[in-house]
Amino acid sequence: MDFKAALDKINTEIAALPLNGNPKELYEPISYFLGIGGKRMRPVLTLLGCYLFDQNIDKAVKPAIAIELFHNFSLIHDDIMDNAPLRRCMQTVHEKWNRNVAILAGDITLIQAYEMLTYVDEGIRAEIYAMFNRTAREVCEGQQFDMNFETQPEVSIDDYIAMISLKTAVLLGFSMYLGARIGGADTTEAQKIYDAALNMGISFQIKDDLLDVFGDATKVGKRVAGDIVANKKTYLLLQALEKADEVDKARLQQLMTDNCISEIDKVGAVMDMYNKLNIKQIAQSAIESYFTKALQSLESIAADEYRKLFLKNYFTELLHRES
Amino acid sequence: MDFKAALDKINTEIAALPLNGNPKELYEPISYFLGIGGKRMRPVLTLLGCYLFDQNIDKAVKPAIAIELFHNFSLIHDDIMDNAPLRRCMQTVHEKWNRNVAILAGDITLIQAYEMLTYVDEGIRAEIYAMFNRTAREVCEGQQFDMNFETQPEVSIDDYIAMISLKTAVLLGFSMYLGARIGGADTTEAQKIYDAALNMGISFQIKDDLLDVFGDATKVGKRVAGDIVANKKTYLLLQALEKADEVDKARLQQLMTDNCISEIDKVGAVMDMYNKLNIKQIAQSAIESYFTKALQSLESIAADEYRKLFLKNYFTELLHRES
Repeated sequence: MDFKAALDKINTEIAALPLNGNPKELYEPISYFLGIGGKRMRPVLTLLGCYLFDQNIDKAVKPAIAIELFHNFSLIHDDIMDNAPLRRCMQTVHEKWNRNVAILAGDITLIQAYEMLTYVDEGIRAEIYAMFNRTAREVCEGQQFDMNFETQPEVSIDDYIAMISLKTAVLLGFSMYLGARIGGADTTEAQKIYDAALNMGISFQIKDDLLDVFGDATKVGKRVAGDIVANKKTYLLLQALEKADEVDKARLQQLMTDNCISEIDKVGAVMDMYNKLNIKQIAQSAIESYFTKALQSLESIAADEYRKLFLKNYFTELLHRES
Repeated sequence: MDFKAALDKINTEIAALPLNGNPKELYEPISYFLGIGGKRMRPVLTLLGCYLFDQNIDKAVKPAIAIELFHNFSLIHDDIMDNAPLRRCMQTVHEKWNRNVAILAGDITLIQAYEMLTYVDEGIRAEIYAMFNRTAREVCEGQQFDMNFETQPEVSIDDYIAMISLKTAVLLGFSMYLGARIGGADTTEAQKIYDAALNMGISFQIKDDLLDVFGDATKVGKRVAGDIVANKKTYLLLQALEKADEVDKARLQQLMTDNCISEIDKVGAVMDMYNKLNIKQIAQSAIESYFTKALQSLESIAADEYRKLFLKNYFTELLHRES
């Protein structure tokens, strides 16, 4: 099963979610936000994780939707916290409606995630609930670390990797763990697939940082170099601060605190610095290094090589994505 | 077991919650907010509900905390949505920290509620999860209806009762249902106790509306008549709009849209109208009527009369509360 077949199953299930509840002011935003789409990477990973161990993936579909709902909950709330006007070229919930609607729509989406998770078979339910709760908590912790970084004077690359592990990668790890366990993998094999997805997630997030600056705006669906404008401590900026000599570091810090410079000049100046310091290549090499770790974990799993191939292809697709 | 013994058990368990996690920016607000205290009515009801059917209530304590955590989640988020500066005489989370901290602290508190709920015995776990999810969703729906009322031109008394049932009463119903089921009650008896707590909850909320206007500010812990200042469509206001003749109704509506009148004059004028229309007595009689229904449901339960007495006493305590 390739990822497109998995994606079709996910989209069909999402289209059938009962989101016509009352009051409509609460359910319309949820329906709208789910409709924006996106890659559905997490539920696809759940299905591909299940498929590694069982050809019948139907029982993984509803639990996979739980992950997608959880992800949507965190996006809706993160968008409020980040004051983000757009998500995938569409207005965010707090922008289209208002902040209160977005808070509550996020809350309900989280509750719906728990509702969908009840479809996990009884034999593994307690384990999956415990792990989902832990993962959910970690994602929130990651978001808080990310917000802390805004005002924290020194952030190391290690701090950054720890933060994106929590904020992004553990949920990818759990997505695949969940699928593998539903497919019948034992906890040891499932842990390997967790590790694979975790490293893929770190690689994915650094790629995200890279695309923000060096990606094609029409494909990325957000404002170009929004991270630079917002002084976001991305992998790129942290590497630049680490690699720069005293003069360049001071210049970078000055650019971040300069309230008079125009956005376009600021982006240009920071990008010049990134080019001078070879930041694109450094990031690219980190992306590949975490990606290699992910593939190694995947190799070590005791599953059919042919089936692994679908997963490898999907990982590769994510590595080469332009948005 | 009287409610004070139950409350002690709850407070001991809350004090032992692991809230020293990282990042501290996330866990400190949760710890702070739980520390503000409050009546702990919901977990106390869980313990008293359990005690009706089983003298050993220990296994109900952690699930009871799940309810208190859920309640705290909804308060933290509601306070943001309502722009409330104070809760029980203390600063709200978004006021003491900021809005983003409050969103995330609420999210984690909801996740922790789910974590504590995993302590329910396996035999009833699927049932309890399903009911908790339904209740959680209903509470959010109630909050959205409440917000809708702000701009909805006509709100009937029935609309209002439906809203407070969702926003407040179903959680009380579930609190007791949970306790009863943990104590060994069958679903029929547990449903009776759910109905009792539901009606008690409606009674409780109307009392809340009454205390806002006619309560003692030093005891209530919020600003006096804050509901009048905010034009909140409370039971009192809706009854006044229904009972008033055309002239008085127009006067009330004019007071609600008058941007020039001082707060103190507005409160005084609305209270005069309430007094003229006998609103305090009307509310008091509704409180007693729902309270009577609650007691009738309680009477119908097949449990020891002596043990029921503790619950009746607690209900009565809530009916006569001044804050």
